[in-house]
Amino acid sequence: MSVTAAKGFVAAGVVAGIKDSGSPDLALVVNQGPLAHAAAVFTGNRFKAAPVQWSRQALATPRLAAVVLNSGGANACTGDAGFADAAQTAAWVAAEVGCEVEDVAVCSTGLIGVRLPMEAVLGGIQLAAQDLSQAGGPSAAEAIMTTDTVAKQAEHGSPSGWTIGGMAKGAGMLAPALATMLVVITTDAVVESAELDRALRTATGFTFDRTDSDGCMSTNDTVILLASGASGVSPDPAEFSEALTGVCASLARQLLADAEGSCHDIEVRVEGAATEADALEVARAVARSNLFKCAIFGNDPNWGRVLAAAGTTAAGFDPDHVDVAFNGVRVFADGQLGADRSEVDLTSRDVLVEVNLHAGGEAAAIWTNDLTYGYVKENAEYSS
Amino acid sequence: MSVTAAKGFVAAGVVAGIKDSGSPDLALVVNQGPLAHAAAVFTGNRFKAAPVQWSRQALATPRLAAVVLNSGGANACTGDAGFADAAQTAAWVAAEVGCEVEDVAVCSTGLIGVRLPMEAVLGGIQLAAQDLSQAGGPSAAEAIMTTDTVAKQAEHGSPSGWTIGGMAKGAGMLAPALATMLVVITTDAVVESAELDRALRTATGFTFDRTDSDGCMSTNDTVILLASGASGVSPDPAEFSEALTGVCASLARQLLADAEGSCHDIEVRVEGAATEADALEVARAVARSNLFKCAIFGNDPNWGRVLAAAGTTAAGFDPDHVDVAFNGVRVFADGQLGADRSEVDLTSRDVLVEVNLHAGGEAAAIWTNDLTYGYVKENAEYSS
Repeated sequence: MSVTAAKGFVAAGVVAGIKDSGSPDLALVVNQGPLAHAAAVFTGNRFKAAPVQWSRQALATPRLAAVVLNSGGANACTGDAGFADAAQTAAWVAAEVGCEVEDVAVCSTGLIGVRLPMEAVLGGIQLAAQDLSQAGGPSAAEAIMTTDTVAKQAEHGSPSGWTIGGMAKGAGMLAPALATMLVVITTDAVVESAELDRALRTATGFTFDRTDSDGCMSTNDTVILLASGASGVSPDPAEFSEALTGVCASLARQLLADAEGSCHDIEVRVEGAATEADALEVARAVARSNLFKCAIFGNDPNWGRVLAAAGTTAAGFDPDHVDVAFNGVRVFADGQLGADRSEVDLTSRDVLVEVNLHAGGEAAAIWTNDLTYGYVKENAEYSS
Repeated sequence: MSVTAAKGFVAAGVVAGIKDSGSPDLALVVNQGPLAHAAAVFTGNRFKAAPVQWSRQALATPRLAAVVLNSGGANACTGDAGFADAAQTAAWVAAEVGCEVEDVAVCSTGLIGVRLPMEAVLGGIQLAAQDLSQAGGPSAAEAIMTTDTVAKQAEHGSPSGWTIGGMAKGAGMLAPALATMLVVITTDAVVESAELDRALRTATGFTFDRTDSDGCMSTNDTVILLASGASGVSPDPAEFSEALTGVCASLARQLLADAEGSCHDIEVRVEGAATEADALEVARAVARSNLFKCAIFGNDPNWGRVLAAAGTTAAGFDPDHVDVAFNGVRVFADGQLGADRSEVDLTSRDVLVEVNLHAGGEAAAIWTNDLTYGYVKENAEYSS
């Protein structure tokens, strides 16, 4: 149930002293092979943090021997000096684990605009390299936490004899300045890089890309997939892709469940759409409506706010023939008042909002959180 | 300083009994001519309330004799019966003031999905028709308030002898379910409908369309401009257009200043853009970032959140050469740390955030509010 669940991987999480708090703040994940295939996806934000710039360059050849991750500083908007710091970090890791510098990916999370304390980073790398073990996964997951209250890990074991394990950090995808989403996934399956890349893009497209806690995109988001081939088993591509999507979905759910200040995890599912893109556009518009998110915080099945958000999209539908249901109770049906709102119970953490556009056979969902006092407090009091 | 400031207009605001509270809830504005030219803009939301559907139809010929407005109910998502109610309302007004039914516009604001109490509406129309006077503007402005804490009015007097007056309601453009933006503007200038339309679209494009309190679009938003020609003066088109934009800007500022739960009015000004559209795209992305809005609530000059929002746009700029200033203090300059954040004072209600893209000579601004406990409270506790 960790990033070292798959054979061929060792990891460690240590206190490097980057954080003032003295909490663990540096993690190292090393692929011991025999293969070193890798794939990755990065933030779409145009302000890409230095470690993202470094790691994209490292992934130009799809092989990685190690990933080093730090919390306590995002190394974003730090200019050329910040990029040099990321490169230096990779070089120190390469020296410790005995690999090429371009086979080391770097991930950072924490404050934007602050240089990393490089002496602490060096000490942490040396410490972590000594601590590397197959039991080190949970420590690594703990060392990348920022405002996270729990470590996020997931695992899938195939009856065919291969395994996928993973770890993630992020309090939702709520705060570019302090809650970047970092994910490292490992597998001992024998999978070529091109296939890893295809499977990873499919998996993130259906999971992290549809997780939209507060509509804000980080400068540091990174998802890295490493394959050691240590199981010696070449999986069926469809089975591997499905399993990888499952692991990503589990990690995405764990991110949402730990989102800053949130009281509800909300699935906005749009059905009856002419195209999947239409379904996603409507679901995202609803998921990003602050009025809708406040209503869910107030346990209010406010279908008017769902419609008002849907009405801002260009998706194909007839406004006179739309349904809205909360937790299975259809309060608005075919453009008319439906079941009485008193039949809806929104007190549980999980909330399902269904919108049927009656315009086709496509469907898609976006996962989000409610907008709460806790969210405002955490993001108003936090200072960059 | 009201909707009856211009010659040729009478108005009234009365207690019709639509609201349970017993507060004024029905307003009537009548154009006594000699001209009855008019122009209007309506919400872009595809779920258009019944009164919006009625009024768009009425404006098919660009003349209006009267506008009737009610608070206490939005008459939105009420189906064919709701449309019939809007038509009946117009017919009653036409009978009282002696005009054609298609020369009456109808505006409603309040709860979505609830039918209006038509007996109360009829009584209110009869009462208002008896009360119509040149002194009735302020009463009309009061009768359209919902969560507004103050009535919003504006006036411009031209040295050439014509006047523009106006009233507005809306607590920001914050809540489709309860805080629709309704605006009625009157002038005694002699202006043809085509010119009124041109001037109104220019004015709203630069003012209300750039006011984005919480990114949410109402089902009922309406801006109506009536011209009586009673001054006998034909204004210079450029002067008229500029004056109208000024009146709209004043009303828009008043809406923002009264936005639900807000503590700051924020101008996000983007300069150095390759195109005005680029400037608007970046300004709107920043204005809609919940993290940015929370930071301003916390008096935090969080330039990282400004950049992270700008980085999600497709606007033309080089991320390595961007400036960010708060209230004139450039905390991020040419892609590097600038002045110390301690030099920024965000304690005043008005906050100016400037982003220079260094990509051209175009500029534009979006006006917004901060995201506060008060906003969450008002929109979580309110029940549709």
